[in-house]
Amino acid sequence: MSAMDSKHTLVALMEDEPGVLNRVVSVLRRRGFNINSLTVGPSDEEKISRMTLVVEGDETIVEQVRKQLQKIIEVLKISDVTKEETVVRELSLVKVSANSNTRPEIMQLVDIFRAKIVDVAPDSLIVEITGSQDKVDSLTNLLRRFGIKEMVRTGPVAMVRGVAGVSRVDDD
Amino acid sequence: MSAMDSKHTLVALMEDEPGVLNRVVSVLRRRGFNINSLTVGPSDEEKISRMTLVVEGDETIVEQVRKQLQKIIEVLKISDVTKEETVVRELSLVKVSANSNTRPEIMQLVDIFRAKIVDVAPDSLIVEITGSQDKVDSLTNLLRRFGIKEMVRTGPVAMVRGVAGVSRVDDD
Repeated sequence: MSAMDSKHTLVALMEDEPGVLNRVVSVLRRRGFNINSLTVGPSDEEKISRMTLVVEGDETIVEQVRKQLQKIIEVLKISDVTKEETVVRELSLVKVSANSNTRPEIMQLVDIFRAKIVDVAPDSLIVEITGSQDKVDSLTNLLRRFGIKEMVRTGPVAMVRGVAGVSRVDDD
Repeated sequence: MSAMDSKHTLVALMEDEPGVLNRVVSVLRRRGFNINSLTVGPSDEEKISRMTLVVEGDETIVEQVRKQLQKIIEVLKISDVTKEETVVRELSLVKVSANSNTRPEIMQLVDIFRAKIVDVAPDSLIVEITGSQDKVDSLTNLLRRFGIKEMVRTGPVAMVRGVAGVSRVDDD
């Protein structure tokens, strides 16, 4: 990553049809863009899905990504929300080794991070954590010394705060 | 969906290299499999990502999906965890219209669902909710009558409860 490079967050609305995700991933792949994460799920409109894309690169590169994706006919709208005030959240489940000796300390960490214990077994716990990437990273790093058996993490989803936002209707 | 069809959850570990996601999506697309959701993020091992895939179809179809994906060299492991006891979670941000009259009722619903308000503007709120698909659906449906301005949702991530799980090490 050069000094000019930074992370950009793009939000896209696209038709929920077979092949669209394929086209999006192909465009990104062909152009060799450096994708940090890609998360797709339903939007508030039926048949429209919403994608959050984190891309690394300078302004020019990111603008190229945006333009290339905009060319895909099923991509209805795509915005770079990097400079906007956004809420960015991801979700992670971490299965950590635990026994009667270590469980209290793990529970304490979970409390501090306002995370949740969602499964208990004699020798492990599953911790659910929601937050910014930094928050998820911090708790994961603290849990590491107990032994992480398994981890799964969604990519981040982003939403512009307040009145502005990414929707197909400009003013509703 | 025929009587035999149902939702299956597959968990895969794969190398985090450019083109892998492209290959996975292409295989699914070419075979015309009905993908409900696909979520990819980091696992606990560096350079290994973890994918949760929800597919609709009968046992035979889902076994075909599993086998096709297993053929991809960067897919290190893939398991159908449908019949296991799993924790399945997704995350959603919902921007809902709100004013001084409706805000108290929205806050009440948010409390009942143990969701969180993560942004407040004069005419809207952003609600963060984490849970099963049903839980996220229920709150979203209740919020609908206030007017949903925007919604973003990760796909579900899944983890087998207790000692069993999907990791590259069979017994650690």
